[in-house]
Amino acid sequence: MEFSRYNSSHSAAPSAPELPPESHDYQHHQPPPQQQYQSYYGQPQAPSSSYGQSGGFPAGTEPGVVRAFQMVDRDRSGFIDEHELQQALSSGYQRFNLRTIRLLMFLFKNPYDSLRIGPAEFAALWSCLGHWRAIFERFDRDRSGKIDSMELRDALYSLGYAVPPSVFQVLISKYGHGSGKTELDFDSFVECGMIVKGLTDKFKEKDKGFTGSARLSYDSFLCMVIPFLVSYD
Amino acid sequence: MEFSRYNSSHSAAPSAPELPPESHDYQHHQPPPQQQYQSYYGQPQAPSSSYGQSGGFPAGTEPGVVRAFQMVDRDRSGFIDEHELQQALSSGYQRFNLRTIRLLMFLFKNPYDSLRIGPAEFAALWSCLGHWRAIFERFDRDRSGKIDSMELRDALYSLGYAVPPSVFQVLISKYGHGSGKTELDFDSFVECGMIVKGLTDKFKEKDKGFTGSARLSYDSFLCMVIPFLVSYD
Repeated sequence: MEFSRYNSSHSAAPSAPELPPESHDYQHHQPPPQQQYQSYYGQPQAPSSSYGQSGGFPAGTEPGVVRAFQMVDRDRSGFIDEHELQQALSSGYQRFNLRTIRLLMFLFKNPYDSLRIGPAEFAALWSCLGHWRAIFERFDRDRSGKIDSMELRDALYSLGYAVPPSVFQVLISKYGHGSGKTELDFDSFVECGMIVKGLTDKFKEKDKGFTGSARLSYDSFLCMVIPFLVSYD
Repeated sequence: MEFSRYNSSHSAAPSAPELPPESHDYQHHQPPPQQQYQSYYGQPQAPSSSYGQSGGFPAGTEPGVVRAFQMVDRDRSGFIDEHELQQALSSGYQRFNLRTIRLLMFLFKNPYDSLRIGPAEFAALWSCLGHWRAIFERFDRDRSGKIDSMELRDALYSLGYAVPPSVFQVLISKYGHGSGKTELDFDSFVECGMIVKGLTDKFKEKDKGFTGSARLSYDSFLCMVIPFLVSYD
């Protein structure tokens, strides 16, 4: 039974259990983009210290993305910090909450360089956000700029994360916060989704057999989780 | 070897590994207060809806604590929300960051009532903060109102949490944030310590044999961790 949950068609999101039966409207969804994300996240790369011929960007990066990066990288160091990232994303997306920015930095940064990101990571992040915005807009059917809890669940599923009902309750309770109604704008959607993505990816690293459970030491449990938690301000 | 780590004198903090050998200055410490905390945290209690004869406070609660609570509970409902808690703690401690307040609410609230706390929980929280402040002041040797990273490690140990070196690095990197030097005021110390306390307590619930590791399902892993993460504002 545990085995079968990962032996489903959602092989790209192996730690995500099957969708609850009441879910609907999946026939129009794109395939979960997990494999694409895995090439973004957690791949050690040697840091590049300045722009090369392609400016350090992967071949084929759109000129607008390169411009957004270079506009904020005023010292041409080839790296941007969290405030510069906030500014750079404003040109194509919106001004994200600094808490969301820090989460994005944490998930997309080069593991060898903890406080800044370079062109390759920036291009990956930009592309990921573009995909997430398309998903968000698909579920924001009334174009209100917000999605409700059921739309959030469907949107996360479209991204490859079939969040179990018990977890989903915990997740939305944090965004409802006192009011009966849970509505997420794009900023909160990105934060919420990136938390699910980040924790799922971390858990999958420990669940190599895709059994749906993993043995964790106390130390590794804390090391997995603490980076998501504390955010100095 | 894994077994022996929990077979130490720190039996009150069974998921905490032994202290690194370079640690010092423990002879003056009070015994770890874990058992006391366990009676605070996670004990289901039926919610009491209004003040009883003792005002809902445990017998022997200091009048100042009762006053601090009743002063902010203007409608005499017997419960206070996060903003009222922030105000109530100001009278005896300081005005904590709302993020710290939410963490305290989460760790001390009655499990049946997610958005407010009553007299018994408030008294437990007040007493816990008193203990933590005494520890903080003991390690803030120059009375600067801040402790550095080594003092943080020793202070956490005094509270019964011998954070493994690898975890400690992750923890302090979140508070150094760019500067070389990590210094925590009492607010950050409480936040940081409560995160360690909360995650350790959650992990211990899964590590019933005190082996230092636990098997977690993907669902339970997410459910354990997400409440610490998302903080709506």
